[in-house]
Amino acid sequence: MKLIKVKTMLLTLLAMIMSLELQAQEHPKLIMTKAGVEKIRANLGQVPLFDASVAAAKAQVDIEIANGIDTPIPKDYSGGYTHEQHKRNFFTAQKAGALYQILDDEKYAIYVRDMLFQYEAMYADLPRHPKTRSYARGKLFWQCLNDSNWLLYMAQAYDAIYEFLSEQERQTLNQNLFRPFADFISLENPQFYNRIHNHSTWGNAAVGMIGLVMDDQELIDRALYGIVDDGLEVGLKDDDGGFIKVEGQKAGFLANLEEPFSPDGYYTEGPYYQRYAMYPFLVFALAMENAKPQFKVFQHKNNVLLKAVNALLNLSDADGNFFPLNDAQKGMSYFSPSLVTAVDIAYHYGDKDPQLLSVAQKQNAVLLDQSGLSVAMAIRGGKTLPFVKKSINLRDGANGQQGGVGVLRIGEEDLTLVYKYAAQGLSHGHYDKLSFSLFDKGDEILQDYGLVRFVNIEQKGGGNYLKENKTWAKQTIAHNTLTQNQTSHFNGQYEVGSKHHSELYLFDASRDDIKIVSAKESNAYPGTEMHRTMAILALNNFAKPLVLDLMRVTSATENDYDLPYYFMGQVLKTNFDYDRPSTLVPMGEDNGYQHLYLEGIGKPSSLSTQFDWLVKGKFYTLTTASLMTDDIVFTRLGANDPLFNLRSDAGLMLRRNATDNTTFVSVIEPHGSYSPVTELSLDPNSNVAEVRLLIDSDAYTAVSIKDKQNQVSLLLVANQNASKEASHKLKIGKRTVRWQGPYHLVTQ
Amino acid sequence: MKLIKVKTMLLTLLAMIMSLELQAQEHPKLIMTKAGVEKIRANLGQVPLFDASVAAAKAQVDIEIANGIDTPIPKDYSGGYTHEQHKRNFFTAQKAGALYQILDDEKYAIYVRDMLFQYEAMYADLPRHPKTRSYARGKLFWQCLNDSNWLLYMAQAYDAIYEFLSEQERQTLNQNLFRPFADFISLENPQFYNRIHNHSTWGNAAVGMIGLVMDDQELIDRALYGIVDDGLEVGLKDDDGGFIKVEGQKAGFLANLEEPFSPDGYYTEGPYYQRYAMYPFLVFALAMENAKPQFKVFQHKNNVLLKAVNALLNLSDADGNFFPLNDAQKGMSYFSPSLVTAVDIAYHYGDKDPQLLSVAQKQNAVLLDQSGLSVAMAIRGGKTLPFVKKSINLRDGANGQQGGVGVLRIGEEDLTLVYKYAAQGLSHGHYDKLSFSLFDKGDEILQDYGLVRFVNIEQKGGGNYLKENKTWAKQTIAHNTLTQNQTSHFNGQYEVGSKHHSELYLFDASRDDIKIVSAKESNAYPGTEMHRTMAILALNNFAKPLVLDLMRVTSATENDYDLPYYFMGQVLKTNFDYDRPSTLVPMGEDNGYQHLYLEGIGKPSSLSTQFDWLVKGKFYTLTTASLMTDDIVFTRLGANDPLFNLRSDAGLMLRRNATDNTTFVSVIEPHGSYSPVTELSLDPNSNVAEVRLLIDSDAYTAVSIKDKQNQVSLLLVANQNASKEASHKLKIGKRTVRWQGPYHLVTQ
Repeated sequence: MKLIKVKTMLLTLLAMIMSLELQAQEHPKLIMTKAGVEKIRANLGQVPLFDASVAAAKAQVDIEIANGIDTPIPKDYSGGYTHEQHKRNFFTAQKAGALYQILDDEKYAIYVRDMLFQYEAMYADLPRHPKTRSYARGKLFWQCLNDSNWLLYMAQAYDAIYEFLSEQERQTLNQNLFRPFADFISLENPQFYNRIHNHSTWGNAAVGMIGLVMDDQELIDRALYGIVDDGLEVGLKDDDGGFIKVEGQKAGFLANLEEPFSPDGYYTEGPYYQRYAMYPFLVFALAMENAKPQFKVFQHKNNVLLKAVNALLNLSDADGNFFPLNDAQKGMSYFSPSLVTAVDIAYHYGDKDPQLLSVAQKQNAVLLDQSGLSVAMAIRGGKTLPFVKKSINLRDGANGQQGGVGVLRIGEEDLTLVYKYAAQGLSHGHYDKLSFSLFDKGDEILQDYGLVRFVNIEQKGGGNYLKENKTWAKQTIAHNTLTQNQTSHFNGQYEVGSKHHSELYLFDASRDDIKIVSAKESNAYPGTEMHRTMAILALNNFAKPLVLDLMRVTSATENDYDLPYYFMGQVLKTNFDYDRPSTLVPMGEDNGYQHLYLEGIGKPSSLSTQFDWLVKGKFYTLTTASLMTDDIVFTRLGANDPLFNLRSDAGLMLRRNATDNTTFVSVIEPHGSYSPVTELSLDPNSNVAEVRLLIDSDAYTAVSIKDKQNQVSLLLVANQNASKEASHKLKIGKRTVRWQGPYHLVTQ
Repeated sequence: MKLIKVKTMLLTLLAMIMSLELQAQEHPKLIMTKAGVEKIRANLGQVPLFDASVAAAKAQVDIEIANGIDTPIPKDYSGGYTHEQHKRNFFTAQKAGALYQILDDEKYAIYVRDMLFQYEAMYADLPRHPKTRSYARGKLFWQCLNDSNWLLYMAQAYDAIYEFLSEQERQTLNQNLFRPFADFISLENPQFYNRIHNHSTWGNAAVGMIGLVMDDQELIDRALYGIVDDGLEVGLKDDDGGFIKVEGQKAGFLANLEEPFSPDGYYTEGPYYQRYAMYPFLVFALAMENAKPQFKVFQHKNNVLLKAVNALLNLSDADGNFFPLNDAQKGMSYFSPSLVTAVDIAYHYGDKDPQLLSVAQKQNAVLLDQSGLSVAMAIRGGKTLPFVKKSINLRDGANGQQGGVGVLRIGEEDLTLVYKYAAQGLSHGHYDKLSFSLFDKGDEILQDYGLVRFVNIEQKGGGNYLKENKTWAKQTIAHNTLTQNQTSHFNGQYEVGSKHHSELYLFDASRDDIKIVSAKESNAYPGTEMHRTMAILALNNFAKPLVLDLMRVTSATENDYDLPYYFMGQVLKTNFDYDRPSTLVPMGEDNGYQHLYLEGIGKPSSLSTQFDWLVKGKFYTLTTASLMTDDIVFTRLGANDPLFNLRSDAGLMLRRNATDNTTFVSVIEPHGSYSPVTELSLDPNSNVAEVRLLIDSDAYTAVSIKDKQNQVSLLLVANQNASKEASHKLKIGKRTVRWQGPYHLVTQ
């Protein structure tokens, strides 16, 4: 090779690097890019959904500009004035920055600049926030978490007006506000910053974002890799009981991306926190993609971030509400602004899945950047396809080897069964191994309670977690799963629970007539194994699909078992008699039982106990194979709740005492409908005549469901061999049934 | 005058009469007319809403035709198979008849004919229905009421196919089915047929309709005027405790039109039963209008039927749900098919009010007759105006002199206050003098319980009234009004309650800043007078309008007073401490108290007691002027309810014991909002600092509302003189206020 050629090559490379560096110096460069802004401006007024989103942001920001800038001295918990005002400020500033870029109107830049300088003026002397409840108090807010929110949004606002500011102004802001702010939430709060936790993700991303704006490599490294020497003790815990420091644990953004996300994109804390964590994950990943594409953050761990968006969307009911697994406030949905971000980014930077467009259409808003424009243009172009949610099995754990969540769906989300056999879920986890919840379209039929907290409602304990979250919501008895001897799984010990997870036995959603999931749990109660198999069955002799619930318990010792079903709606009828005490007394002293009143108690009148109830105009019947010694208990939540923090919800509890091995078999049968307008009651009665446990050995379980016309369906499960290839043979009465694979459905 | 002229005149008259008679012989002539059918056929395929309604009916009927005709031997209560099947039959037959006329397709006539002959074949030997619960058992159904429903619909089906049948077929049906059927529900059941009651209206209309089809003047007269000599004893009661025969009472359709409707169109049983009764009223009136216009049934009592449609629509919340006054199942709304009938008839035969078209649009269905066509054509023509519900005062009683219901509305139904000072309301009435309920758009904020019944849900007591309807729902303590000494108004005696009504003192909705209603009740508790004044105040210093509630009690003796507020939603916070007993005990033995648990009890901590709660994402605060000796009690419904017939609803009860004269003053303040999606809490705190009763004499009551910025508003009420002209002078502290009229609002 000639030297001249080498020289040319080197020069070319140098030019490329310089151009990249130059590009890296350009602003905006985080969420928006120069090229993106040009395209947006060129299309303004021609893309309805994008224009509507701009108009909505403009309306909000213009009101705030008219109101004037207010940066009060921090004082309140969430829900209180100063908290909400500072929160409003960062949301508004971020939007104002985007509007400055899009509309090229200096008033938005001036607004952001003035706000930043107001913060700059107050920040140097600002002490820690006066409220002391957090393990990591912030300055503007009561916890560093919210300070990190502030920085993550403000970095975007700053980025948007960066070129509008003078070099002098930038230096002032960098030195007096942003660098100290970033150092405070990281170096001064390693217990917050250097964890594997959604808190740290916010902190990492915030530090990284401002690092990118300032082009401060030290901050970028600290964001990606954490604080090298954090001085934290192994075993340290936060005020929720979550671990702060675990032996050998890495830290920083990339570690937080590694650990809590499974290869399927399931986030171990559950969808409510995933939704919260997605925003910093995606936004910083996007900023890295724009500013430092060579780090390939989006591609990290085999595209896990984009997979996570898909996983999250699939962890919602037909109305888009996320399943309230672990600590989760009900009503959070894919209409959340952070999901607008997620959907738009996943569309534009992913493989342009046209099904995402229908979610964006429902959201009726797009991100004010090139990804939002891209989504809005695709919708305008008629590319939208319906977002079809299918059954899905999502593995939990960094390597996908710590249990998971199985979601069975049938029809157009006519029934959605959410089955949890996951790991503990960090500090927001519940003691709810093998629990489930059931949805009919967007309606909860058998509910997961969610959390005990009124997020940002100051009247309720400052908007923070309430003590009933620990005493009720996390406890096993608060869930549709088995409680043994009135104690919670792992005795409610977080350290123990965190070491274990359930094991998937079987997931198969490939057939139209049966969708099935099965898992085993052997650590929640040492000496006891639970093996729960749940299936949705679409049988020809039933108008709607059924849910079969098979909870097999094997124990070396005799125990008391409680298996509750927290039904929504109104009790209609039972086929057993029960007494309702006129005085209500709590059912226990602890483990959640202290919050339950016994509202009624009865004994089975037959081997198939039935309970009918009505939820939002639809009928449901639970038919369970009873022992005549079982108690059937109606429960009502609300005891020992001094400040009305709990909802007054109902439950039906199957109670089987002093038993070692036993199996609970139940069928949940949706049928018919009722309208208070026409007052017509269609198909109000169960069609299940009998549910029986025909065989229950270590090797096999066989269940029969007989309808009112005496038509019988059988489900046979091999309990010890989930191989698809294995051949089985089972004698049921006089009949021998042969099949291949772990389960077999026999219909007449 | 020349004889020839007289002769010509006479001949002309004769021709006119003959033409009228001939017209009267034409079929269809009830709901549809020959001319109407011609117009419908001419417009088919050109009027979207009408075409859609035809298509919907066709789809339903075609399924039934494919299923075949089933007329099972009567056996079940409502909700059960035979009941629902016979009900389905008459609905389907009526639609099939209409389709025969509209589509001119014989298969629909054949279907109706075959069904009628199946009934004809079974009717002669049909005994009374085997279920014995009703005071007037039917044959096809357990009560004559449902048999009357059947006849009213079947008469329409018969009318539609009358000309399709041979003379022989008609005679067979008339002699073997329809005449005996009409005689059975009337002559053989005078206790059902000859009352002033919605039951009788159905009976009368049914007999009248079939009389018109058969041109049987005896039946028509029996419909209009009742059975002349019914042989019933005065004082007889039905199984609900309602009077059957009252001294001097008239009977028949016209009497039923006279008595229960007030001149304003309010139906004394309340909107739920009005909705039910409207159908026979309107349909028979329409049939009379078409077949015997000379009776001017529509114009009877100054157009009361058309006024009733307007009254009924105004007795609904923003979602169209009727206020659950008296016995009423929640969820019944103007989407009910009987309201489609009502709206279309009121439009076409009334003064073509274009606001009715927007209700028809929401209903998304029209009647399959000329009135439905007329509505659909007007909608197609773009004539629709929004249906704006205003504040309205509806008098109760045949002459409008038995109290009433006042509805105060502000904004676009932002708040709707329903204030009841009516008569007893016949057998479906509740002991709830001066009670109220409060809606925010379509959401109940302070609820009226409604009834205890699951209409047509057989699992719940055959779909009939449950005993808790009497022991709870009708009792005074079940309502947002004053209970004295833990007894119900009129001691819960229907005979006594039926003799009395409350007296309107004042209704004024003419101003924008205050809408006010006030009434007095002096018979519910002999010796005690209650005077309740309620107002919606739109004050400049409050972001949303407030409700002021002033309950003035005057008594000769010391009593215990309970004033409950049955709030929906979640308790947030109080400004007083309370204890929650860990064991729940019923609050009493009878009068409804046996169904309430005491869930918490506290004493005021200041003279303004505050209670914050959250309903569907909106905040509310009740601020009440307390005596330090008051008890504030949290209640929970559900005690002594052996079959879970009651909802587990909450209440806050103000309890003032051993007091003679006293006044309860409270402000209900909606403020702010909360979204579980954005988790933003806007304006979550009350802006009321203090509510005080400044003056409370026989002559005047003065109340102050002070906000958190110490701005004070006053409401002054003259208690004894409601004249608009009267001048008043009142010294409040050092200030003398002068005004004219019964009330005066003073704002700073």
